[in-house]
Amino acid sequence: MSARQGKRPLGVAVLGTAFMGRAHSSAWRNVGAVFRDVPELRMRVLCGSDAERTRAAADALGWHEASTDWRSVVERDDIDVVDVCTPGHLHSEMAIAALEAGKHVLVEKPLALDAAEAERMVAAAERAPGVAMLGFNYRRVPALALARRLIADGRIGEVRSIRAAYLQDWLVDPEAPMTWRLRAETAGSGALGDLGSHVIDQVRSLTGDEVVGVRGALRTFQPERPGPAGPERVSVDDAAWALLDLARGATASIEVSRVAAGRKNALELEVHGTDGAIAFDLERLNELTVTSGRDGWPARVLVTEAHHPLLEGWWPPGHVLGWDSTFTAQAADLLRAIAAGAPPEPSFADGLAVQRVLDAVGRSDAAGGARIDLSETDQGHDDRAETTR
Amino acid sequence: MSARQGKRPLGVAVLGTAFMGRAHSSAWRNVGAVFRDVPELRMRVLCGSDAERTRAAADALGWHEASTDWRSVVERDDIDVVDVCTPGHLHSEMAIAALEAGKHVLVEKPLALDAAEAERMVAAAERAPGVAMLGFNYRRVPALALARRLIADGRIGEVRSIRAAYLQDWLVDPEAPMTWRLRAETAGSGALGDLGSHVIDQVRSLTGDEVVGVRGALRTFQPERPGPAGPERVSVDDAAWALLDLARGATASIEVSRVAAGRKNALELEVHGTDGAIAFDLERLNELTVTSGRDGWPARVLVTEAHHPLLEGWWPPGHVLGWDSTFTAQAADLLRAIAAGAPPEPSFADGLAVQRVLDAVGRSDAAGGARIDLSETDQGHDDRAETTR
Amino acid sequence: MSARQGKRPLGVAVLGTAFMGRAHSSAWRNVGAVFRDVPELRMRVLCGSDAERTRAAADALGWHEASTDWRSVVERDDIDVVDVCTPGHLHSEMAIAALEAGKHVLVEKPLALDAAEAERMVAAAERAPGVAMLGFNYRRVPALALARRLIADGRIGEVRSIRAAYLQDWLVDPEAPMTWRLRAETAGSGALGDLGSHVIDQVRSLTGDEVVGVRGALRTFQPERPGPAGPERVSVDDAAWALLDLARGATASIEVSRVAAGRKNALELEVHGTDGAIAFDLERLNELTVTSGRDGWPARVLVTEAHHPLLEGWWPPGHVLGWDSTFTAQAADLLRAIAAGAPPEPSFADGLAVQRVLDAVGRSDAAGGARIDLSETDQGHDDRAETTR
Amino acid sequence: MSARQGKRPLGVAVLGTAFMGRAHSSAWRNVGAVFRDVPELRMRVLCGSDAERTRAAADALGWHEASTDWRSVVERDDIDVVDVCTPGHLHSEMAIAALEAGKHVLVEKPLALDAAEAERMVAAAERAPGVAMLGFNYRRVPALALARRLIADGRIGEVRSIRAAYLQDWLVDPEAPMTWRLRAETAGSGALGDLGSHVIDQVRSLTGDEVVGVRGALRTFQPERPGPAGPERVSVDDAAWALLDLARGATASIEVSRVAAGRKNALELEVHGTDGAIAFDLERLNELTVTSGRDGWPARVLVTEAHHPLLEGWWPPGHVLGWDSTFTAQAADLLRAIAAGAPPEPSFADGLAVQRVLDAVGRSDAAGGARIDLSETDQGHDDRAETTR
Repeated sequence: MSARQGKRPLGVAVLGTAFMGRAHSSAWRNVGAVFRDVPELRMRVLCGSDAERTRAAADALGWHEASTDWRSVVERDDIDVVDVCTPGHLHSEMAIAALEAGKHVLVEKPLALDAAEAERMVAAAERAPGVAMLGFNYRRVPALALARRLIADGRIGEVRSIRAAYLQDWLVDPEAPMTWRLRAETAGSGALGDLGSHVIDQVRSLTGDEVVGVRGALRTFQPERPGPAGPERVSVDDAAWALLDLARGATASIEVSRVAAGRKNALELEVHGTDGAIAFDLERLNELTVTSGRDGWPARVLVTEAHHPLLEGWWPPGHVLGWDSTFTAQAADLLRAIAAGAPPEPSFADGLAVQRVLDAVGRSDAAGGARIDLSETDQGHDDRAETTR
Repeated sequence: MSARQGKRPLGVAVLGTAFMGRAHSSAWRNVGAVFRDVPELRMRVLCGSDAERTRAAADALGWHEASTDWRSVVERDDIDVVDVCTPGHLHSEMAIAALEAGKHVLVEKPLALDAAEAERMVAAAERAPGVAMLGFNYRRVPALALARRLIADGRIGEVRSIRAAYLQDWLVDPEAPMTWRLRAETAGSGALGDLGSHVIDQVRSLTGDEVVGVRGALRTFQPERPGPAGPERVSVDDAAWALLDLARGATASIEVSRVAAGRKNALELEVHGTDGAIAFDLERLNELTVTSGRDGWPARVLVTEAHHPLLEGWWPPGHVLGWDSTFTAQAADLLRAIAAGAPPEPSFADGLAVQRVLDAVGRSDAAGGARIDLSETDQGHDDRAETTR
Repeated sequence: MSARQGKRPLGVAVLGTAFMGRAHSSAWRNVGAVFRDVPELRMRVLCGSDAERTRAAADALGWHEASTDWRSVVERDDIDVVDVCTPGHLHSEMAIAALEAGKHVLVEKPLALDAAEAERMVAAAERAPGVAMLGFNYRRVPALALARRLIADGRIGEVRSIRAAYLQDWLVDPEAPMTWRLRAETAGSGALGDLGSHVIDQVRSLTGDEVVGVRGALRTFQPERPGPAGPERVSVDDAAWALLDLARGATASIEVSRVAAGRKNALELEVHGTDGAIAFDLERLNELTVTSGRDGWPARVLVTEAHHPLLEGWWPPGHVLGWDSTFTAQAADLLRAIAAGAPPEPSFADGLAVQRVLDAVGRSDAAGGARIDLSETDQGHDDRAETTR
Repeated sequence: MSARQGKRPLGVAVLGTAFMGRAHSSAWRNVGAVFRDVPELRMRVLCGSDAERTRAAADALGWHEASTDWRSVVERDDIDVVDVCTPGHLHSEMAIAALEAGKHVLVEKPLALDAAEAERMVAAAERAPGVAMLGFNYRRVPALALARRLIADGRIGEVRSIRAAYLQDWLVDPEAPMTWRLRAETAGSGALGDLGSHVIDQVRSLTGDEVVGVRGALRTFQPERPGPAGPERVSVDDAAWALLDLARGATASIEVSRVAAGRKNALELEVHGTDGAIAFDLERLNELTVTSGRDGWPARVLVTEAHHPLLEGWWPPGHVLGWDSTFTAQAADLLRAIAAGAPPEPSFADGLAVQRVLDAVGRSDAAGGARIDLSETDQGHDDRAETTR
């Protein structure tokens, strides 16, 4: 892994200055203060498309330099880590370029707009010397990390069902205006890709299992929305549903929506096993509800104890974390993977697996709900992985 | 409607002495004390299969007589109302006999074991002079009645999605023993019919809309359970999922399970509209969460005010009701329907509509999840109703 | 105990036809159906002040007779149990008359208007052959009975503090009209006696301990309210606070209010011990939150299991009980005490103990908050009890 | 206000490297990225007592320099803001020195160990050119800032009562070891000063009113705790209670405890007015429960909207903030006060007012609960303020 040179601080560049660029900048600015065991870094360059705004953002967010030329930035010798926070259709080109330049790469989710593009990115990552990580930040919610640990430790027995929803309300108003997020050509899909990708990643992360069968349905409740020059057609889903079969026998039901009044950012997960259950709601990020045993009762755990996952560097018990803390912990794990030369988690391959499920939901919907079998696809991936390593 | 003779108190008979017989007896014992506007009644006969146990139950539950001969009871002149609380496979014969004897009939849900049997019962009800009511008692949960009123009044706008679950835990233990409820020949289906029927009735009741398309899936997690002479095969579902298309464009997602650790009797309903939302959990029977407007926040309404539906006869605000109160209110509505000569709600036709959806879930599962179109079936029902009335 | 004659069913009379008369009638009507182990009873007479209304109430509520002459009723040979549900200023006279006539007596709380009157009632109960029980119905909330059991079993260690509130909102409106409940001469006190008596009874019941010191404060936020002929002076408290020292070292803080917007009937109790905690809210009557151990997390227990206290006669797990169920269980316990010839719980002496605390709150407030020592008073009571038995 | 020189970035020094030093460092590191309207700053010096540890902390937390000589630091020309995060007994000396050196000063709460010391600090602040701010960080919880705004706007009418608690569990174990926090000479008081100061500040902040009467009680449940050489005497309170009279007629009840099992950091506030109520729990920092109007129901507001207070610089709606965000917002408000030359909030005078209430709780307890009148004291303060300005 040639990207890391001795004890020199790692040089970081972030591509993208919008919402995600801000969130990732916060992570780079704080990771060393929270987690003392990570390699030293320098916030070298923030890249954006508009010179003036990028300069202002770089100043405010703590970057040494601003740039509008991402291609030269990913080639620079003093850059070791390239963090891709641009819109989804730019992920592939930027990430592959950075990987080919020998850099470590973090890509904000979703990995790509479709499975074919994701496959190319996985292939690039397999060839490259750098660490390639995908930014499903909710894996770094301490409560969800605790849930994963409890499940892995068998604390709720064998998982039988997962009930998941990700509900938001920002499109509930029929007069909410048209945006690029509502066109298939620019966004790929709607609630499915934006929210469903997080849900599917959590299903895989919490269970450690693979999706082998998919039945899905998509709905666009509001077929037109006001554009600057009159009504425009919405070409992505407002809401989506899926039923997933997992390889070891569990079933997951999923609902995602951008038209759920009263729900701002409600990623709700409920996992039932043969010997207990866990439940979570992102709007109460610091809490996990744990039912231990067949006769147990749901206990509300405030996941802020030092012995809980991801919490060693924060505050004393009871002092809750915010949404941005997940990016800080994600950055720490990337830095640790770089230091250890170990594969990061989630990987590009995880992103591809999620993308395949998303694609299958769309195909199932087009086929009237019929089940799409993914078991062959996954075996194929495993086979290829074996031969190329 | 000849079954009602002047001002003589109505004579009531309950068929069945088990759980439901007890619950309905409680209703008949208390309805006159709570609701002052209902016709007077007499608790005349409790029918059961075992003479001694029926006698003891009749004494304890407030009945004048006990009987083991239901056929003669439903013929008696002093019986005006026959309340069928026996296991499902006896509903059809008893209800039809009572209707043909000119009685008013209340049948505990489910109406029948399949749609064909339900159709015969609907036909019998259409021919008979008496009132024929189906016992979906959750329609008489004040919070759900309030939800229905709010939705009907347009308080959450046009309904777009319903998210429903009915989760119990009594089969979570793989060693839970075999019972008749786990065999298709005696129970019809598993969680689907037992729990799903309530959920589907609520979807119809809350929206006032019909199900026109069904995609479904069934799962039996525990294929064998211990019987007296060794392992026996479970032939019904432990859990079921369905996605329902409603005629006016809403989508309902449903999950029912008897293997959900930590959930005792959790009927959860969440309805999202273009202008708000409501949410309910049967474990908190006296509460309704109401989100008013697109920018509203979920408010917890304690549904115990005198102006809330079904509450005029109970206690002052803040004094919560129990599960059994739903049967008392159901009995009151039956008595009022009898007094008014008006069709009761829910009717046998409602039971048939639910049964058709349940059947369609099973057919969709058998077909790999493909969508079953019920729009023709429903039109057929409406046509027949028009020609026979 | 002469009041019980062989196996003849016990004849019951209720005095009072208003809210409490209705609630107690419900209990007598249902107790035999729910609890199979209790002596048989007959609902003989309902007594009220208005002949016509009492007749109508008796018919509706299931009584054989109506009467407006309570004095003759409590003398009747066919009456074994007299249940006093009249306003507080009538309790003493009626209860003492019934006790002197050899009857078993149940008195709705509060026992009396002041400690002196309560002392006379305790003395009458000690002299009389019948069972004398006080109606603090919340002792029969299953969740509170479970809390008491858990605490008695040492499951939360040694109790250190109790945090209690009983909050209602019916006087929050400054224009809410004057009633007898807002005059000291008819009601004794305001929120203190009405709500505080329940809270103090729970403190004693949950801990099994005695109050030995009291600091209190009373507030009347709305000094005048509209009467029929203009503004009238409110002479009782709208809200009260107290800090109680218990004999074994715990401290209880109490707040009661009738002007707490948004709270309908919120009796909230929280008990902290050296090894855990419990919490309860009457608006969620079927739930108890239990924290087990110093490192435990609050678990939400749905108190509807057959093995939970008071639940053997009701419904399967998860089928919640209503507020009225507490009166049914109270009636059962009275009947059991009669059958066993055992002292009931709570006794008149419990009522007196509560009254002494209530009185002390008023005295402390008058003294600017200074601590009132009740340890001598309680010893006095114990001494007298010893000498008179 | 001579401490601010033109457009040069403000030089900041933090005194203290422990828990609060870390939290305040986080604020200085992030304030410019979140709030774009604040003056530029430089994180110049971190001061601690141990050279090596201070050096390491400075590196990790983003400081240019480390120092063990706070006296020289507060004199440096390139330091404009001195942020005192040391233990309470050092606050007075450090803050006064910095103020006398012409610096802007932020002091972490509590202002001082007693009212006399606090008075000297207030006097120094009144004499000095710099801005003097006190660090009650919970004033910058968005939900509490929203509560304050709603109350100030009359949205719940006239405030009548405040019910507040701050419950923690870290001393619930009787074997928890002795520390300096449990000795009066080093800590002043126990739960009272540590937790009660926050509660009292909130009472004043939310109502905008002054405390004019105090009744209090203190308890030490565990009089001895294990020290290195055997049991040692605990000389501060484990728990405290107070009843506060506010000048405009409201009453506040307060309970604070470090021995409340199951509660990690539960600052619970409930404010009832003539026309509504608000409720808050710090363990759910991003939520405010709002009851609007006399007939309103408690609505759960997720306080993450851009139009909510303090939220303009953070994330989109539904993306929750953590505890540390309060320090970032506090730093922003200090910087804005410096830029505007305006008095900051809370001021040292606010800290003195809180300290006087804390002292009065202790005096009331010593006097058996008798009410301590603070109205004269407060008038005195106002008079002095008038004469010295």
